[in-house]
Amino acid sequence: MTPSGSDKTVAIASDHGGFALKEALRSDLEALGYSVDDMGPDTDDSVDYPDFGRALAEAIADGAAPRGVLVCGSGIGMSIAANRHAGVRAALCHDGLSARLSRQHNDANVLVLGGRLIGVETARDCLRIFLETPFEGGRHGRRVEKLG
Amino acid sequence: MTPSGSDKTVAIASDHGGFALKEALRSDLEALGYSVDDMGPDTDDSVDYPDFGRALAEAIADGAAPRGVLVCGSGIGMSIAANRHAGVRAALCHDGLSARLSRQHNDANVLVLGGRLIGVETARDCLRIFLETPFEGGRHGRRVEKLG
Repeated sequence: MTPSGSDKTVAIASDHGGFALKEALRSDLEALGYSVDDMGPDTDDSVDYPDFGRALAEAIADGAAPRGVLVCGSGIGMSIAANRHAGVRAALCHDGLSARLSRQHNDANVLVLGGRLIGVETARDCLRIFLETPFEGGRHGRRVEKLG
Repeated sequence: MTPSGSDKTVAIASDHGGFALKEALRSDLEALGYSVDDMGPDTDDSVDYPDFGRALAEAIADGAAPRGVLVCGSGIGMSIAANRHAGVRAALCHDGLSARLSRQHNDANVLVLGGRLIGVETARDCLRIFLETPFEGGRHGRRVEKLG
């Protein structure tokens, strides 16, 4: 599926533990025709994941980007940081099935990955499925509304 | 490790997709000597996960229980719901390694599991490791403070 219009931007950020995977996924996104807002870091020097998770979550909550990708070592820290923000639904996924369900049932707008726990091809599969899978709505819509 | 004093309470909740696993883990907790605050549901009738996730997160944030366990179908919805609350660090785990890292690096106080994605023995392994693994502190402490 080729992105178009305002759907074209994907924000991406990581910490040092997720830096290498962020770089790989940014290349994938560009190859797929997305406009990537890389919110850092620019090196794999040690940083604090809440700083980068908060910045990306604010970009999603403010509407600067409709979708985002966050990577840290396990994905756990980033998923806590991002979900602190109303309107952000950050899904920590470890395979294509969880990525698909995160879109179908939770209308996830941030994909979170553990750069030290899953392999690069599994992560790329999660990303492609996250981007291509629509939300199912219906009873799931009522639940997503309750999340705030 | 045998729990003692105020550490003895573990709150647990689910939706219908996580109900069967919640029942199994409650039995495990009781056998391990924990006092279980089962926040529902009491049947596997369809419910909305944000209602139960919010109730448990409020119990953690208010100090009614030091630790909690949340189960839904994939774990994704519950992890979004619980992490909306300051002071709640809910970790979606899919194996013992992620459960260990959630304690060592993120000082997770809520274990989140996908009842339809992982098997009961994997879930029991996650729970035991979540309960037994201490937080490492140090640089991780600074990051946890930043999560709020």
